This record gives sequence, structure tokens and C-alpha cells, in this order.
Amino acid sequence: MAHIPVFSVVAYSGTGKTTMLESLVRELKRRGLRVAAVKHDAHDFDIDKQGKDSWRFTRAGADVVAIASGTHAAVMENRKISFEKLIASVTDVDIILTEGYKTGPYPKIALRRAGAGLGFAVNPSECIAVMSDVPVDEFSGPVFALDDISGIADFLCAALTRAGG
Amino acid sequence: MAHIPVFSVVAYSGTGKTTMLESLVRELKRRGLRVAAVKHDAHDFDIDKQGKDSWRFTRAGADVVAIASGTHAAVMENRKISFEKLIASVTDVDIILTEGYKTGPYPKIALRRAGAGLGFAVNPSECIAVMSDVPVDEFSGPVFALDDISGIADFLCAALTRAGG
Repeated sequence: MAHIPVFSVVAYSGTGKTTMLESLVRELKRRGLRVAAVKHDAHDFDIDKQGKDSWRFTRAGADVVAIASGTHAAVMENRKISFEKLIASVTDVDIILTEGYKTGPYPKIALRRAGAGLGFAVNPSECIAVMSDVPVDEFSGPVFALDDISGIADFLCAALTRAGG
Repeated sequence: MAHIPVFSVVAYSGTGKTTMLESLVRELKRRGLRVAAVKHDAHDFDIDKQGKDSWRFTRAGADVVAIASGTHAAVMENRKISFEKLIASVTDVDIILTEGYKTGPYPKIALRRAGAGLGFAVNPSECIAVMSDVPVDEFSGPVFALDDISGIADFLCAALTRAGG
């Protein structure tokens, strides 16, 4: 299986990562790519619904519960799994975008927003691009406006091409 | 990666597959096994919740959306994936139990219930065991009472041992 390029969108809370990622997914899909979005949730999310069969299996202690219909599927791990294993379980896409993995090993796109009042959420040397509405002096790579989804999509598509995608 | 044994619980609707599987998961967990439950849902399920970030990524068109916390994770495929791929995506368990895959290639446990008023949901030759509250003449293998979870668990554990688990 070919290696799937992974890019992490990083920023302090309240900078608009989810909204940016949502727009970026839409733009990359418009360009014909197969896209995965992977989010780390610091809070315990509850993806399943009480009373459903999958929930009953989870409640009975199943380590993994999977459910599939003719149009989609879900695999729920009722245990901690590593970020690496989670990424490895995503297949058959052209790009994986992650949100909220500041310490991960993947190239990062840092977001900065004047209102957030903070600098880089990670070391600028780990970033391949920055999206910002304030001047960025600490970074010598490409800087895009916070709302320049087309610009960052161009940049990522070029990176995918270089990666042999 | 070692091959994970898969067993399919099959029966006509209303025979009590989900309740039996729920009890079986609980019993196998009690015995210390790592268990996965995989369900085919003929209806389109909706595992995600409106407004959540994962739902926003799905709505934006992401083919795959994954979310992880410190205690669990979920990978949602927003497209049809084959039963084989779904099974292959389940790792690090000792046994995979499936519900609702009558045509799959895996050994089957057939359930029969007098109230359901029907015979075998699959050809008896595909079954390795039957659980029934009516006499079963068409099958020469092991037959357990419908509520004999301990008996079917013993049988599966022996099968796992033979499989080298």
C-alpha cells in the first residue's frame, strides 16, 4: 500500500482550525481528491447512540464494534489506540488532514489569528506553511491569508505531486 | 499479522441474534478474550451527531473521518466498503463475531426459534453449530439451547485453540 501523505493543522484553541479544515476538505474534494480528516478530541466524545445494537455490543464489553451498511461504515475502538495506529487504519485516500495533533511527526500547517492573541502553537521549524491574519516574522516559508483556502489547497496539491501522489 | 478467526451468527429476523451476540460478547470478555462485534445494517445508520466536528467534516465531503480521544476512537467511512475490507480493518482482537452476513465466507452459527416459525437461514452445511429451541434434524453438528451462552462460548474457545489462538 502506498504511503498516504499526512498534514497536521495546528493552532491554539479558538483560532478556527475546524472551520478552516472543513473548508479545505470541501476544496480538495472539489478538486477530485479522496480526503480523510482525523481529529484528536481532548474530551471524551460519544459517537454511539444509546440503545442501538452497536452501543449494546460496546456496553457488553466488545473491544471493537464495527457497523456497515450499503453506503457507509464505522469502526469504533473502545480502547485507547495510538495516533500512528489510527492513521494506519485510514486507507484508500489521497491525503490525510489531522486536527489537534501538535506533537505528531507530520508536517504542520500553523494557523494564527489576531484575536487569539498568541504566537505559534508549535515550533515554526516544524511548519511547512502558515495561515495568518497577522504579519509572520518568525517563519520564512509560505504564508497564506487565514481565509485563503484556494492558496493552501494549491500548496498541498503541489506537495502531493512532489510526493508522487 | 496473525489471522483473526471470524464467526458469523445468522438467523431470520426476530430470532434474537443481537441479544445472543450481546450475551456472547459479555461471556467471552469474562473469559479474558479480546472481542470484536461486526454488524451489517440493512438500513442506513447514522452514527455521527449533527453539529459535531466529525459530522462537519463528513458534510464537507471527507471520504473518511476519524476521531480519537485518550480512551477510544472511531473511523467512519463515508462510502461503501466491502465486508472483507471491514473485517481486515479490525486488528488486535482474538475473535471477530459478525451479525447479519448470511452470504459471507465465514463459519456460521445458526439460531432457530420456534416463535420465528422458520427453518435455517442458511444452508446447514455452512454451519459449525446451531442454537435452537426446537429439534434440529437437518444438522449433524453440535446443537445448543438458544440460551446456552456458556456452551457456545466453550465451543468457540475450543475452535480458537484449534486455530492456534
